[in-house]
Amino acid sequence: MPSNLPAALFELALANRIIANEGVLDAFGHVSMRHPDQPGRYLLSRSRSPELIGPEDFIEYDLDSRPLAEPGVPQYTERVIHGEIYKARPNVMAVCHHHSPAFMPLIATGTDYVPVFHLGSIGGMKPPFWDQHDEFGDTNMLVVKPEEGASLARALGQHWMVLMRRHGVTVAGSNLRECVYRTVNSHRNADFQVRAMLVGTITPLSPGETKLSSQNTGRTTGLSRAWEYWTARLAKAGNLPVAPKKKTAAERVAKSRGDGARSKKRRA
Amino acid sequence: MPSNLPAALFELALANRIIANEGVLDAFGHVSMRHPDQPGRYLLSRSRSPELIGPEDFIEYDLDSRPLAEPGVPQYTERVIHGEIYKARPNVMAVCHHHSPAFMPLIATGTDYVPVFHLGSIGGMKPPFWDQHDEFGDTNMLVVKPEEGASLARALGQHWMVLMRRHGVTVAGSNLRECVYRTVNSHRNADFQVRAMLVGTITPLSPGETKLSSQNTGRTTGLSRAWEYWTARLAKAGNLPVAPKKKTAAERVAKSRGDGARSKKRRA
Amino acid sequence: MPSNLPAALFELALANRIIANEGVLDAFGHVSMRHPDQPGRYLLSRSRSPELIGPEDFIEYDLDSRPLAEPGVPQYTERVIHGEIYKARPNVMAVCHHHSPAFMPLIATGTDYVPVFHLGSIGGMKPPFWDQHDEFGDTNMLVVKPEEGASLARALGQHWMVLMRRHGVTVAGSNLRECVYRTVNSHRNADFQVRAMLVGTITPLSPGETKLSSQNTGRTTGLSRAWEYWTARLAKAGNLPVAPKKKTAAERVAKSRGDGARSKKRRA
Amino acid sequence: MPSNLPAALFELALANRIIANEGVLDAFGHVSMRHPDQPGRYLLSRSRSPELIGPEDFIEYDLDSRPLAEPGVPQYTERVIHGEIYKARPNVMAVCHHHSPAFMPLIATGTDYVPVFHLGSIGGMKPPFWDQHDEFGDTNMLVVKPEEGASLARALGQHWMVLMRRHGVTVAGSNLRECVYRTVNSHRNADFQVRAMLVGTITPLSPGETKLSSQNTGRTTGLSRAWEYWTARLAKAGNLPVAPKKKTAAERVAKSRGDGARSKKRRA
Repeated sequence: MPSNLPAALFELALANRIIANEGVLDAFGHVSMRHPDQPGRYLLSRSRSPELIGPEDFIEYDLDSRPLAEPGVPQYTERVIHGEIYKARPNVMAVCHHHSPAFMPLIATGTDYVPVFHLGSIGGMKPPFWDQHDEFGDTNMLVVKPEEGASLARALGQHWMVLMRRHGVTVAGSNLRECVYRTVNSHRNADFQVRAMLVGTITPLSPGETKLSSQNTGRTTGLSRAWEYWTARLAKAGNLPVAPKKKTAAERVAKSRGDGARSKKRRA
Repeated sequence: MPSNLPAALFELALANRIIANEGVLDAFGHVSMRHPDQPGRYLLSRSRSPELIGPEDFIEYDLDSRPLAEPGVPQYTERVIHGEIYKARPNVMAVCHHHSPAFMPLIATGTDYVPVFHLGSIGGMKPPFWDQHDEFGDTNMLVVKPEEGASLARALGQHWMVLMRRHGVTVAGSNLRECVYRTVNSHRNADFQVRAMLVGTITPLSPGETKLSSQNTGRTTGLSRAWEYWTARLAKAGNLPVAPKKKTAAERVAKSRGDGARSKKRRA
Repeated sequence: MPSNLPAALFELALANRIIANEGVLDAFGHVSMRHPDQPGRYLLSRSRSPELIGPEDFIEYDLDSRPLAEPGVPQYTERVIHGEIYKARPNVMAVCHHHSPAFMPLIATGTDYVPVFHLGSIGGMKPPFWDQHDEFGDTNMLVVKPEEGASLARALGQHWMVLMRRHGVTVAGSNLRECVYRTVNSHRNADFQVRAMLVGTITPLSPGETKLSSQNTGRTTGLSRAWEYWTARLAKAGNLPVAPKKKTAAERVAKSRGDGARSKKRRA
Repeated sequence: MPSNLPAALFELALANRIIANEGVLDAFGHVSMRHPDQPGRYLLSRSRSPELIGPEDFIEYDLDSRPLAEPGVPQYTERVIHGEIYKARPNVMAVCHHHSPAFMPLIATGTDYVPVFHLGSIGGMKPPFWDQHDEFGDTNMLVVKPEEGASLARALGQHWMVLMRRHGVTVAGSNLRECVYRTVNSHRNADFQVRAMLVGTITPLSPGETKLSSQNTGRTTGLSRAWEYWTARLAKAGNLPVAPKKKTAAERVAKSRGDGARSKKRRA
């Protein structure tokens, strides 16, 4: 089985930059994907702002969020958010953790997210809230211990989005592009919802409409249309990732494990 | 009668990009025009985000929203919005369907649009609302069946704008530029209205003022001034459409119909 | 007395573009100045969006808003706003008419403008409102008749800003740069005021603070600092006006009047 | 002891531009730092908008806000804000004074700042308010007299941020980058807080969470990640400061004091 890791790393860098370019991520937040060949591993950037991430920045982690090899660079402290969700949910292939300005009014007040237009249905009907204080008392608010990540994963349950009180949002996807699509469209819905609440009573999508609309992603041309649009906007901003000129962190890991055969195939 | 189709296709690409560049359209939404020579047909892009559309992307449809020739590329699923309005309203020459962020608070709460300043009068005094659920129950919220499009066209009636609950807005024009002008200015009015509702009681334009102001478009230099401005902004954003280097989809259709005479005239 | 008209025309183009670049003006609105040599005349662009105006676009008007010579290009229909204020107020040297998004919530609801921070004091304490309907009943909302302009000028009285119900704002200045400074800073204050009204009760500047703060403009380095900043931003946006390569409209007027001597001096 | 002044001046220009580029500062406001070698002096730009400041623009002041040498250029009138805080607080190494649009709703209404997410904790739990009117009655609202600056410094006390009624905010830092980090993140928190207040009751971070979160800055990779991000955004905006090509104002001061030895070292 030839690895498609280099293409996956490029796509993951692109995903980080798209979500930043669409205003969801800023200096903070992160986007990961499950390793395309090894379901017991995931790929996440070294400590770097999403808009700046290139394919060479990713580190390979096991599901306990330990790097496969010492990366020699600073790492995100909150990577257990990713690892614990991949551990608990085999059907999750990508995760985004963010502090979208559009979501913050909901996050700061404990107001439920509701889909106010069809594209917002992808966030689900009233996705759950998680409050780190409930189980762990006063903390520095970062999700850094495995048990904190596991608690968040339990709150997510079988949903695809979980809101974190006084912190942010974590979004899951059955593949990377769907994760991006869910992240950006729920962000837009949150903006619309918050402003709508100021002028009247929202009548959200019905449960039936929410379910049917949320299935549009895989059945219409919407996702590919959006992906072309987001990529074009990133290109216009002069911000497309570039293919790595040196070995990637993941390749260095592979090499340090003596995994020469695979490395050769990949470079072929 | 020599065809002015190439110029029309360029203008339609420009219209799509202007409305996107002014913040009304994003990855989704679409702008169409009635065929300049054939009132029983209309022109609409293949499935593509409006900001990226070029003159070569348009497909020719009959009023039942069937392509004149198999286009070989993905199409918008909601094209019946356009076809059914052209069918019901011979005086409509252009249609824009959008999900403007400025309109969303009204759309999500069923709040009437009212003109709060003279340029907003072009949207009319309390344009009608349409709710797909009233006639069709739980759906995926997309307007894809001919009867759904026909229902929307009935709700539009003799108005020039119809608000779609939990979805967006559809705008009509007696020509393409007027449709753009109505779309952008009603979008701005909606933004002003929503923010005004937060600080006090709106005293909108009187019915008389609305009627008189809405006639300014054709009687003052406003539209041509705005068109130069929007085009200049698009140029500055590096986003003007370029003339097609290969045959357009519409030309390919013409050719496949053996409509050589017309094609030659157009290229002359 | 050598004329400084060319420099004034360049500065007036710059003023139009700065106010647009700072988000106050869009396709519509206009900025004029009294003629530097002839107090009975004023300079206003042909019908064009402020962001696009160059020194060659200005037309010379008498205070009855009649062009000194037939300009041969479309003119703003609302120029009486400018002419009638110059006629009524000899100490006004510049006028800006705009529909700032920040002001619209006040304009649509009849909410008084109040200074909420020191820089907002330049708009005055509760500047007057004018409603075209009071005197003229249902109109198309444009200020096009001399008596409409005169009515607005009476409402302005000895103030430096007048709010126009369901329309916009007109700002005056004792010189052009002060007019720009008042326009931009009152626009920012309006934005702050509107958002502040949503979270609590505003305690505006006291009358004494308003008076003292409003005198800062001429006594501190604030205006020159802001002018350098606005100009630098305009340059960065690639939008500085360029010196005219052909005769200006005003020069053509001068020439058509046989005013050769003055023209020569100016070109020297 | 070799001086690191040139590097400090470059970093201070960068700090001014970053805070402006992130939307906190506009034409007005200023950022200073304590002199790296002389704790009894501080460095502040000549009267210039922060986005335009270069390393050569800084003037050396004593803690009474008197320039070490006559600068020959206009100076900020409000520099006592900086001098009096450095005098009262030996542990303050940098100060930013601003009128952030996000803060203005709080400033105009006397609403307390509260941290609504972890990054907002750096602004502290309900930082104090200062009202110039309490002690000085009607003024022009500028903080120009030493006793006005000293009054503000007393209000700041041992906090790291003080809100100024009807005016703006002053932020302190234990080093320059921390001051920038506090300024930008509190600005974002204020935006979130103001919008959150519109949709429900905020449940802010607990005192324990606020304390623990506010210590993250020095213990995680957050600050360096943010600094790289802000610098990259500034570079993309074409707005990085450039190293001085001529003697800086501070060097001219040094030279005028006959401090030749130090100047030589610095240039080496």
